[in-house]
Amino acid sequence: MAATSTRLYCFTGGSVGPWRVDAVLPVIGMALVKPQRLAVSPASTTPPAPHSWQLSGITSNDRYVERTEKLALLNKQEGLGRPASTHAALIPIRKSAAWWALTQDERRDIFERQSAHIGIGMKYLPKIARRLHHCRDLGHDQPFDFLTWFEYAPEDSKAFDDLLAALRTSPEWAYVDWEVDIRLTFDFG
Amino acid sequence: MAATSTRLYCFTGGSVGPWRVDAVLPVIGMALVKPQRLAVSPASTTPPAPHSWQLSGITSNDRYVERTEKLALLNKQEGLGRPASTHAALIPIRKSAAWWALTQDERRDIFERQSAHIGIGMKYLPKIARRLHHCRDLGHDQPFDFLTWFEYAPEDSKAFDDLLAALRTSPEWAYVDWEVDIRLTFDFG
Repeated sequence: MAATSTRLYCFTGGSVGPWRVDAVLPVIGMALVKPQRLAVSPASTTPPAPHSWQLSGITSNDRYVERTEKLALLNKQEGLGRPASTHAALIPIRKSAAWWALTQDERRDIFERQSAHIGIGMKYLPKIARRLHHCRDLGHDQPFDFLTWFEYAPEDSKAFDDLLAALRTSPEWAYVDWEVDIRLTFDFG
Repeated sequence: MAATSTRLYCFTGGSVGPWRVDAVLPVIGMALVKPQRLAVSPASTTPPAPHSWQLSGITSNDRYVERTEKLALLNKQEGLGRPASTHAALIPIRKSAAWWALTQDERRDIFERQSAHIGIGMKYLPKIARRLHHCRDLGHDQPFDFLTWFEYAPEDSKAFDDLLAALRTSPEWAYVDWEVDIRLTFDFG
């Protein structure tokens, strides 16, 4: 098992970092302040200061994916950090108390049978690479439950918007009570 | 959704606390030092110092329970803090990397179809009350993945041992690579 510290990431919106913040769009609920830059750092390093906001999340085991789906995903997906992936998005999401009160079979039914969450993501592989971070059980209060980080090439921006549109109209999204959409461009200059 | 801070608990083994430590038994893997007393505190309070060890865990949503099982559990279980429940156990467990690499359907299959984890617990309700705490995704390195807290009356000690014996011989336990069994008696004097 990977040590906790190697699975924990900080996303710091402020004046430093290799990602230029192009837009911070409130999708559901409150807006976040739009900083100039975003830095992504492993939690073991000192995050940059000062900053507008800082969000933390930890990668973890799959909660819904089944083996046949996992094999299909592994077969199609590519990793983060591809040179052509100069566009990125950070999408923090919070789900409602009603979601968390559901049992595993109920959540899986909404997540995949009704909403095709895995199936929709699969359609956009390998174009859209992603990493999911969990925040809900970090032990110190976090505003969001999940932070998803996406990377893609500029020519796949339309595909990325289509992916988000499909998820946001799915039954699962009735349980999302806060969502912010942060768009970024890699700009190390 | 309950705030994180109200779901986080610290278990402190030291010289203070209402629980007298009767035994600290290594079941699988390394032993822990046996302190005199154990204190259980919400994380928002200052935990007692000095101490031998301190373990933290957070209550969270169910990971495997399905609706029919949940209804049966809710119908039979009783809460912590019953006056007759003067015996308790704290059982920290770590699961192997192989467990965490399994997909949700594989883990559910081992957990319930092969091992009857929920079914075994149900047999001992309402005698044995329990609360599960997750540690793996707390964001700072924790030695264990789970802390389970059990409470029962002295006359149900044999039933509690039977419950543990059934779980420990189940296929699920092949994935447990560290387990310590800490037995306690309520003693506020």
